[in-house]
Amino acid sequence: MDAPVASLLWRSLRVHQVFGANTEVGKTVCTSLLCKVAKNLWRDEQVSFLKPVSTGPLNEADDYHIRRFAAGVAHKTLFQYDIPASPHIAAPASGKPVPLDNDILLQCRDYAAERAAQGKGWLFLETAGGVHSPSPSGSTQGNMYIPLRAPAVLVGDSRLGGISQTIAAFESLHIRGYDVEAVLLFRDTKYQNYLFLMDYFEKHHGVPVTSIPEPPARADDAERDADAMAAYYGGEECEAAAAQVLDLLDRHHAERMDSMESLATQAQQHIWYPFTQQACLKPEDIITLDSAHGDYFQTLARPSARTEPDTAMLRSSFDGSASWWTQGLGHANPRLTLAAAYAAGRYGHVMFAGCIHKPAMALASSLLDAMDNPRLHRVFYSDNGSTGTEVAVKMGLRAARMRYGWDAQQKLGILGLKGGYHGDTIGAMDMAEPCAFNEKTEWYEGKGYWFDYPTVLCRDGDWCIVVNDNLGEVMTKGRTYGSLGDIFDVQARERRGEHRQYEEYIAQTLAALQKKGLKFGSVIIEPIVVGAGGMELVDPLFQRALVHTVRKSPHLFTSSASPLPKDARDWSGLPIIFDEVFTGLYRLGRFTSSSYLGVHPDISVHAKLLTGGLLPLCATLSSEHIFNVFGGQDKSDALLHGHSYTAHPVGCQVALESVRQLRSMEKNGAWDWAKSRGWQTSDMEEEAGRANELVWASWPLDFVERLSRQTHRIAGVWALGSVLAIHVRDDTIAGYKSNAAQHLRDAVAQGRSGGAGGPWNVHCRVLGNVLYVMTSQMTTGETVQQIVRLVEESLT
Amino acid sequence: MDAPVASLLWRSLRVHQVFGANTEVGKTVCTSLLCKVAKNLWRDEQVSFLKPVSTGPLNEADDYHIRRFAAGVAHKTLFQYDIPASPHIAAPASGKPVPLDNDILLQCRDYAAERAAQGKGWLFLETAGGVHSPSPSGSTQGNMYIPLRAPAVLVGDSRLGGISQTIAAFESLHIRGYDVEAVLLFRDTKYQNYLFLMDYFEKHHGVPVTSIPEPPARADDAERDADAMAAYYGGEECEAAAAQVLDLLDRHHAERMDSMESLATQAQQHIWYPFTQQACLKPEDIITLDSAHGDYFQTLARPSARTEPDTAMLRSSFDGSASWWTQGLGHANPRLTLAAAYAAGRYGHVMFAGCIHKPAMALASSLLDAMDNPRLHRVFYSDNGSTGTEVAVKMGLRAARMRYGWDAQQKLGILGLKGGYHGDTIGAMDMAEPCAFNEKTEWYEGKGYWFDYPTVLCRDGDWCIVVNDNLGEVMTKGRTYGSLGDIFDVQARERRGEHRQYEEYIAQTLAALQKKGLKFGSVIIEPIVVGAGGMELVDPLFQRALVHTVRKSPHLFTSSASPLPKDARDWSGLPIIFDEVFTGLYRLGRFTSSSYLGVHPDISVHAKLLTGGLLPLCATLSSEHIFNVFGGQDKSDALLHGHSYTAHPVGCQVALESVRQLRSMEKNGAWDWAKSRGWQTSDMEEEAGRANELVWASWPLDFVERLSRQTHRIAGVWALGSVLAIHVRDDTIAGYKSNAAQHLRDAVAQGRSGGAGGPWNVHCRVLGNVLYVMTSQMTTGETVQQIVRLVEESLT
Repeated sequence: MDAPVASLLWRSLRVHQVFGANTEVGKTVCTSLLCKVAKNLWRDEQVSFLKPVSTGPLNEADDYHIRRFAAGVAHKTLFQYDIPASPHIAAPASGKPVPLDNDILLQCRDYAAERAAQGKGWLFLETAGGVHSPSPSGSTQGNMYIPLRAPAVLVGDSRLGGISQTIAAFESLHIRGYDVEAVLLFRDTKYQNYLFLMDYFEKHHGVPVTSIPEPPARADDAERDADAMAAYYGGEECEAAAAQVLDLLDRHHAERMDSMESLATQAQQHIWYPFTQQACLKPEDIITLDSAHGDYFQTLARPSARTEPDTAMLRSSFDGSASWWTQGLGHANPRLTLAAAYAAGRYGHVMFAGCIHKPAMALASSLLDAMDNPRLHRVFYSDNGSTGTEVAVKMGLRAARMRYGWDAQQKLGILGLKGGYHGDTIGAMDMAEPCAFNEKTEWYEGKGYWFDYPTVLCRDGDWCIVVNDNLGEVMTKGRTYGSLGDIFDVQARERRGEHRQYEEYIAQTLAALQKKGLKFGSVIIEPIVVGAGGMELVDPLFQRALVHTVRKSPHLFTSSASPLPKDARDWSGLPIIFDEVFTGLYRLGRFTSSSYLGVHPDISVHAKLLTGGLLPLCATLSSEHIFNVFGGQDKSDALLHGHSYTAHPVGCQVALESVRQLRSMEKNGAWDWAKSRGWQTSDMEEEAGRANELVWASWPLDFVERLSRQTHRIAGVWALGSVLAIHVRDDTIAGYKSNAAQHLRDAVAQGRSGGAGGPWNVHCRVLGNVLYVMTSQMTTGETVQQIVRLVEESLT
Repeated sequence: MDAPVASLLWRSLRVHQVFGANTEVGKTVCTSLLCKVAKNLWRDEQVSFLKPVSTGPLNEADDYHIRRFAAGVAHKTLFQYDIPASPHIAAPASGKPVPLDNDILLQCRDYAAERAAQGKGWLFLETAGGVHSPSPSGSTQGNMYIPLRAPAVLVGDSRLGGISQTIAAFESLHIRGYDVEAVLLFRDTKYQNYLFLMDYFEKHHGVPVTSIPEPPARADDAERDADAMAAYYGGEECEAAAAQVLDLLDRHHAERMDSMESLATQAQQHIWYPFTQQACLKPEDIITLDSAHGDYFQTLARPSARTEPDTAMLRSSFDGSASWWTQGLGHANPRLTLAAAYAAGRYGHVMFAGCIHKPAMALASSLLDAMDNPRLHRVFYSDNGSTGTEVAVKMGLRAARMRYGWDAQQKLGILGLKGGYHGDTIGAMDMAEPCAFNEKTEWYEGKGYWFDYPTVLCRDGDWCIVVNDNLGEVMTKGRTYGSLGDIFDVQARERRGEHRQYEEYIAQTLAALQKKGLKFGSVIIEPIVVGAGGMELVDPLFQRALVHTVRKSPHLFTSSASPLPKDARDWSGLPIIFDEVFTGLYRLGRFTSSSYLGVHPDISVHAKLLTGGLLPLCATLSSEHIFNVFGGQDKSDALLHGHSYTAHPVGCQVALESVRQLRSMEKNGAWDWAKSRGWQTSDMEEEAGRANELVWASWPLDFVERLSRQTHRIAGVWALGSVLAIHVRDDTIAGYKSNAAQHLRDAVAQGRSGGAGGPWNVHCRVLGNVLYVMTSQMTTGETVQQIVRLVEESLT
């Protein structure tokens, strides 16, 4: 249904898509001319013409010109409809099954691959109508052909009004990531559009505009008509113009090859990569990305796979880390592009201190509304999760210091979880306990205390809570539950008293810390999943117990009398900060992961998926009580934090659209297919009641359980929302330094080399002994199934 | 030439622009129908029709339909050309002076203001041709009318191919920030475009598509033709459709008013502002931004100015802080929008660790090339200046620690300048000395030593170097120079030995710090201007002396024998970091401000203007020697820093376009007009030689010197590149807490209330007693002149 389609790139075959600025602008004439002249100039090569969708009587079909006037050019039409109407009308009316966009793309790729195997040559793919003319299934040309990413030739409109049409068509292609390399149009002497357009495209886009004579008026007599056309195609001016365009396309094809081949080497020499030991990074280890669409990157094949001129240069790579956990609505989603462009066109960036604009306000309202947390009342914008958690902790520490009367010299720490990660700026690093990530960094100084915690795993088919040795002495070890839902049913577990041992442990630990004279100013945790610290699913009851214990125990943080606050929306004990940068916005299946815990934080930080995966933006939401602490007559009492691009309109507008779209997907049951794959079946609901409605993942339950039974190589598995985490057994080195998961990563990275749609693989990341794979919120069940098969095969 | 034009918004008058998806799609018929029905339904109101530019014989002109079929509707054509051709051909051929876009906009606004004064009503402004049809001077409709920002009605194309035309036209308007509120088109029964478009626009844009019957075919007989048209306009279906559209426009107009009126109140309740004491912030202090274009915001008039229904709701506000120093290529620059949209459409965001894509590599190459600094070899991307300086200091400290063999426990500081500012994340704050910005922030701990320094000011017409008391004992006080260029001629000054007292002072200070046992790991300074710390122009010779002294004195930082490095590109003494977030990329007139100092830093940080002022992005450039320190077999030796959106393609593509454009402006002498205003006259060059070629500002030299002579209220002035800084005298409180500059800020914020183009003012920011005004790199001499007049009047 949405099989990946590798972009059309071979060394041997130059593939170009021909788009029209309008219908009837001469697309077929221009394409036929290009084919004919290509065949003349590259005599030893093959030239082909592909019309994916054609409407109208067969003898008038577009490849008639090819057959008639471009001898020796191969031609093919994939879908032909006799009715002379737009494909979205002709296809359903034909009585034949209507091909989906993906079907058409697969056949286009098939044909191109077949041609590429024939040796050097040219392939021109002619689209139908204008750039937004409908496809048979009702999408548009411009949207449908994006994944092929063949360089485009735009046939301009030489008629009255054609200047506007040509520029508008160009823009619609350009904002979809097409590389329009040439504009070709008739030299209408009355309107002279070509003159204006030559200047315009040169000045604004550096794209050459070539004009050719107008074809002869159609004669009544078919033979005379054909003779006139033959003379036209053979005319000197036409041939020279086409030769010029072809020369350019040929050069660009070679340049694109060279550029792609050299990018990794250049990068290895001049890029300083984030979080990467570059001494071990060879150019061949660097993945060259040509583009990305939906769930897939288009990546350059490894050097070993691109030695032959006819092997596919590009393959589809499933973006299995969701590009560092950012992707939600698919790469290059046209709606997000348009939202970004709208805000760029309306505002650019405008300063935010003391100013307000609609996207920033609408996004703030939308987030506060969707969080459904009566404590949250204010939104502070920054640029990424790291800055956003620093802002959160600045807020929390100040609130605690003011309420408890600590002076400015008093050192304050935070309470967190072991392995917690909040970013790489120094303040965010200081929130994390010393570990491999930070221990060598100058200026890093862990400020706080980090709790051990019980984790959740499916092991040998059973869902259990794993209690490590540090916790083990005081707690029940390795309890097993009927389902993940049962573990997440924190209220039922509280009714059974399971939280008590947690609360006791936490209270005792806090009392011991207080005895040592340590002072704490906030709690900061990632709800449900400790992400970068090892993809650990934390027992939700433990996090809930932590919040409850802190809130009911101000005496554990201050020696002064500190009654519980009167307003239930006010913080108590310590301000509770949830870092939902990774866990929020449906990554784990819900708008907010705090809802799994059934607690409302006082401050909540959101980034990554906030923009659907397009741009950096962060929102730190806070309670009014904490905000008020920063009031006063003195500016120096305010939260003196800000970034130049705070609340940049482009980011806010994109986020607004993303949040709207994600929420409406939830409302419309967009993930029901996943829920029904073992997680929330109607049978189960009847049997087990509430618990089974609590959790779901885009990964089928039986797959998760099956994996977990490979106990000789797998220590445990969990899946929640879009995330699948496979904890690989490593009996030698544990944790971050383990290489155990890399074999599995490398195996899925092999992927498949052929089949419909061309080569594809899965690009994913490991964290020590954990391999994780993440879908976007748009990933379909079929795609998941393909990955499931690949993972299972890689394990056998 | 480019007078500001306030957007068309009055409570009394609903103004709409009518665009066509193509030429001859029925724009005039649709507009006439809207006019006619508006007049029928709102009987007590005025309805007007404005055709800014019309071509073709007068009796066929577009307002013929209004005159003939819409009785009681006022109509006007501003520029009429008899030649039936596109305005870019007809206007020059007419023999009359060709109006510039700005002339047309000013007249449009004039007419609209005149109508608004007549009481409640409607005004429809009909554009010419399609959305990209050329204007008389050769720009396009869509680009020309942006500043008016009236909600748009798009007349769709009902003909064959019209689906594509209508969608493409919509997108071209949308990405320019137009709000297309309705699509109106003929109900062609053959192609039925309206059916597809209704679904498409509803689903993708939430915009309603309304269809009306096709007008009667044109009859030969003029009278019969007119009768048929009259019957058409009066037809029930036409009237009902128009009424529906008008009702929607009317509702949106009211909603826009309400939304704009309430934004500030909502913001005051729910936004947590950066760097703002909100206890003092009332809703009426918050500026509501409707849009921004070029150098101007469009801001909602203050409540006191919008009590009358016929007063202009919006005014043009010159963005005098360049939106926190970010703007370079004008707000909403269509080229940057297209660059952003292209990358969004090609990639969205793709992960960067271990991957490479073209925009990131091309930008890195372009920056390394433009810096022309043989030391710089690597680019590390992050999201803003604060993260970028943290990255820089992490790089520098590690390099120093490894070379000098300090262990991980050794506390390392940085060397900087007093008042230096590098961002608000904790690590960036720690680079700054304790001050009002940071002293109350928990976890802040200033780590380093910060030098006093001599500053440059024009005082009473003289350019002098001001030496404050801390430095005064060892240095010559208050030396005066013939020009700013003489001060910047650091080589001539070195030949005269002026640097010696600086170098001695610096060396002595460093020796004293070493004696105290303090260890330093890097130097970080903002070259030339200390920005947020008070807009101080630092004597460039002092910064040069600082770098030279550090570089030749490794012994001042380590007790171990440490010879100077063999490779001249290697760091020596300490790694030198230049924070060019504010000072770089032509803000101070040059690509890099390090070139004023004639020194090459080892690490250089760039943000703000990097994207031309559109999006957050930062690049930290470093030497290969420092990069190599992070090599090794162990991942934990690497620079373990990264952000999810590292090197996001949208930011990189926009930055690539910005850097390209800024560099080509320099090359093409885009700022020659400014240079010639007293800074670099040919006379001067002959007289004073090299010095006078060194500096220039967009602010005229005589204006700067004139201001500086107002010694009773002004302590001194400087201008360099796009920046003008006015140090206001405050004999009571000095520095950041002073209110002295606020009076001047408030005076220029008053601006002018009327005149062609509507009300305008200057929005600028103060830093304590300093008022600064900044142009973008696109600001014209005329605009500067207007601001100069306003500032001078505000001071009298």
